[in-house]
Amino acid sequence: MPMTGLSSGSLSSPKVDVVIDTGHPFLNLTVDGFLKIGSIAVSKVAVEETYNCLTKGSVSERNFEHALKRMCKEGVYWGSVAGVYVGMEYGMERIRGTRDWKNAMLGGALTGALVSAASSSNRDKIVTDAITGGAIATAAEFLNYLT
Amino acid sequence: MPMTGLSSGSLSSPKVDVVIDTGHPFLNLTVDGFLKIGSIAVSKVAVEETYNCLTKGSVSERNFEHALKRMCKEGVYWGSVAGVYVGMEYGMERIRGTRDWKNAMLGGALTGALVSAASSSNRDKIVTDAITGGAIATAAEFLNYLT
Repeated sequence: MPMTGLSSGSLSSPKVDVVIDTGHPFLNLTVDGFLKIGSIAVSKVAVEETYNCLTKGSVSERNFEHALKRMCKEGVYWGSVAGVYVGMEYGMERIRGTRDWKNAMLGGALTGALVSAASSSNRDKIVTDAITGGAIATAAEFLNYLT
Repeated sequence: MPMTGLSSGSLSSPKVDVVIDTGHPFLNLTVDGFLKIGSIAVSKVAVEETYNCLTKGSVSERNFEHALKRMCKEGVYWGSVAGVYVGMEYGMERIRGTRDWKNAMLGGALTGALVSAASSSNRDKIVTDAITGGAIATAAEFLNYLT
């Protein structure tokens, strides 16, 4: 779980250190991706809902319940997508035997196709989502080398 | 420009190597980000439009024009967002003096706010987009350490 605390003069960084050893690198990576990206999504929704409360100026029990539900839903969704992506990229690395941006592209495309196939049955949409997934993963990989 | 070619037995990788020296690292990074991510977006639209043509089974001049226009528009849009993000992350690094995931988070948040402010004037939407931008950038940074 991310934990924040105030140290003298500076905000210490949230620590996301849950290590679960499932005994297989593929599963370890997937679980790790799920937990880390899931935590980020949960934090994102928490910040968003806090902002909503601040602008509305009122905190009711219903808002709180709604926020909690959104945190669970988005956390699981982002986490699953990340887990599938990390697993796919690892799989690509094993199959292709090299580490480069093409792993990210293929992993992103497969993840996009899978996530899209899970939520809709329109063939054209699945292909478009696969292409978008691949493009986003490639872009993230490239940005990574830049910065 | 990305160039693909068929070598014996395997597809050689597209090469994206445009080096423009503007004389300042900040500008260099921004231009680099614009060109690289812009090329990815252009390729993405090209693949998508090719798929559209294949499923429809016809290629007309109008489709081609439409595809070209979309390539330009999306290329410039993705490129600009990437350029702003890379510049922001570099700026954060200079201001904060360290390299960690918080640069990505702050850079992503600022980029989200800027891009959103450029296209709409709704204050709530700008804040929400900033939060989403920060979350996505952080997620990309984390995934990066995982794989």
